[in-house]
Amino acid sequence: MILTVTLNAALDITYRVPRLHPHATNRVTEVAERPGGKGLNVARVLAALGHRTVATGFAGGGTGEALRALLTQETDVTDALVPVGGTTRRTIAVVDAATGDTTQLNEPGPTVSPAEWAAFLGTYRELLGEARAVALCGSLPPGVPVDVYARLTRAAHAAGVPVLLDTSGEPLRRGLAARPDLAKPNADELAALTGSTEPLRAARDARRRGAHAVAASLGPDGMLAVTADGAWQAAPPRPIAGNPTGAGDSAVAGLLSGLVEELPWPDRLTRAVALSAATVRAPAAGEFDPATYEELLPHVVVTDRPTAA
Amino acid sequence: MILTVTLNAALDITYRVPRLHPHATNRVTEVAERPGGKGLNVARVLAALGHRTVATGFAGGGTGEALRALLTQETDVTDALVPVGGTTRRTIAVVDAATGDTTQLNEPGPTVSPAEWAAFLGTYRELLGEARAVALCGSLPPGVPVDVYARLTRAAHAAGVPVLLDTSGEPLRRGLAARPDLAKPNADELAALTGSTEPLRAARDARRRGAHAVAASLGPDGMLAVTADGAWQAAPPRPIAGNPTGAGDSAVAGLLSGLVEELPWPDRLTRAVALSAATVRAPAAGEFDPATYEELLPHVVVTDRPTAA
Repeated sequence: MILTVTLNAALDITYRVPRLHPHATNRVTEVAERPGGKGLNVARVLAALGHRTVATGFAGGGTGEALRALLTQETDVTDALVPVGGTTRRTIAVVDAATGDTTQLNEPGPTVSPAEWAAFLGTYRELLGEARAVALCGSLPPGVPVDVYARLTRAAHAAGVPVLLDTSGEPLRRGLAARPDLAKPNADELAALTGSTEPLRAARDARRRGAHAVAASLGPDGMLAVTADGAWQAAPPRPIAGNPTGAGDSAVAGLLSGLVEELPWPDRLTRAVALSAATVRAPAAGEFDPATYEELLPHVVVTDRPTAA
Repeated sequence: MILTVTLNAALDITYRVPRLHPHATNRVTEVAERPGGKGLNVARVLAALGHRTVATGFAGGGTGEALRALLTQETDVTDALVPVGGTTRRTIAVVDAATGDTTQLNEPGPTVSPAEWAAFLGTYRELLGEARAVALCGSLPPGVPVDVYARLTRAAHAAGVPVLLDTSGEPLRRGLAARPDLAKPNADELAALTGSTEPLRAARDARRRGAHAVAASLGPDGMLAVTADGAWQAAPPRPIAGNPTGAGDSAVAGLLSGLVEELPWPDRLTRAVALSAATVRAPAAGEFDPATYEELLPHVVVTDRPTAA
């Protein structure tokens, strides 16, 4: 199975309003809820691709219960979330129906106690025994050590399990030091890490900081990978209009399934880019449209890039 | 006991953000939750004033459970809410710490089925047997008949229980026809009902539409009452700065406790205005500051107004 880790899981709530009036009262016309946090999004796409997928991390309180109920009812993902005394955070996406713009409100998440953290590490080590790959995804809740992704990467490598790391800021910087097999930053995260806004230069720099391979998601420009075997850029055949929420998480699922299936790098990128575009095109944020995925797959354009300057 | 009815109860959530950036991602720095909906706010203040208070209405789903847990833990209000299959709505107040402005997002509330509505009517009639007064408060959830407040007023009068009605729009218009003992609109609601923005004229008009008495909350100008026994305006001794959320609900609690205690009208208004001002002054939205209440009580200024033009 493939294991995904979501330390700061969320109940993702989407509100639709006719038009958002800041500093006034807004009547919400539609409410949708789904399990959220990057790792749970990745898990949902992996399961939809037919991979046996287990999700761990933390969940607690009423919102944690709601999240777990939705995960069980609406996906084929196996729930291995570890209970915490605090309450799982909500994220609220307020979609302005007039403009299509989204205003996002993210709660901070529950504080994790040392005992809860120890319980998670026990569960994680146990699950690694079954895992063919692990994805470490997203931000950290309060109380979790900032070098957590380095620790989890080392534990995975000790169990012979390859690691994909998808986070940002200090947790990314610290995580890279443990040499994950693949890091998947977006262009902004890569620039914040390396100080360079030129993706190829920045991806090479990120590899030097420890990742065996770097796959950077570049929004409408697709994805750039710099690996020990070569460098490639994959792009969709045409611009795709829609909602980019979750597109990066679908790309992670594409990369991870490609790794487990031992696909060549250009094929992994092709899958990641087609899944990402099919997510932008899906009516619900974070879902992917299977027909768009199948349609785009043969038309993703992969070009070689130089691995060194 | 005093009974309050909240058909569209809510879990009130307050988010504090350093500054609200519309159409961008905002990190919430503080989250607070409390039982909400006008009738539950009124009940909380009545209980704090020492009145035995029972709250009914509907609650359901995870948010309904959270609301009921908070009601039991944090107030002396007796929970007589009727379960529904749908999920109690959330309201989200996003407070911009830089400006103090609030952006409000209100979910619509669960649809109430005919069976749930019938169950509520049974509970309501039973509770009326014990009630010395009833407050009918707030908006209606989907599925509830728009003339609900007229029906509930007639049932209360059949049981000999006086009725205070605090709602707006069509439910107010229809409710007045059943001749509630007191209607408590604010200036905007009164203007929407009568077409007049002159409060005294509008309050007289609202009486002609059926209410035995009308007490209109006028924000910083205090409260205007037009009754069979006379008309009065009560105002705080000085402008009160703070958060007006819940000030109208505190005024309802003041009026209702004054009715049950058979206070003369000027004393009821004095209490309502002092409670309302003490709510504006309290640090948490919807709470009242007892010291401010006691301090203001002797200084509220009541003036006679003409009952007819």
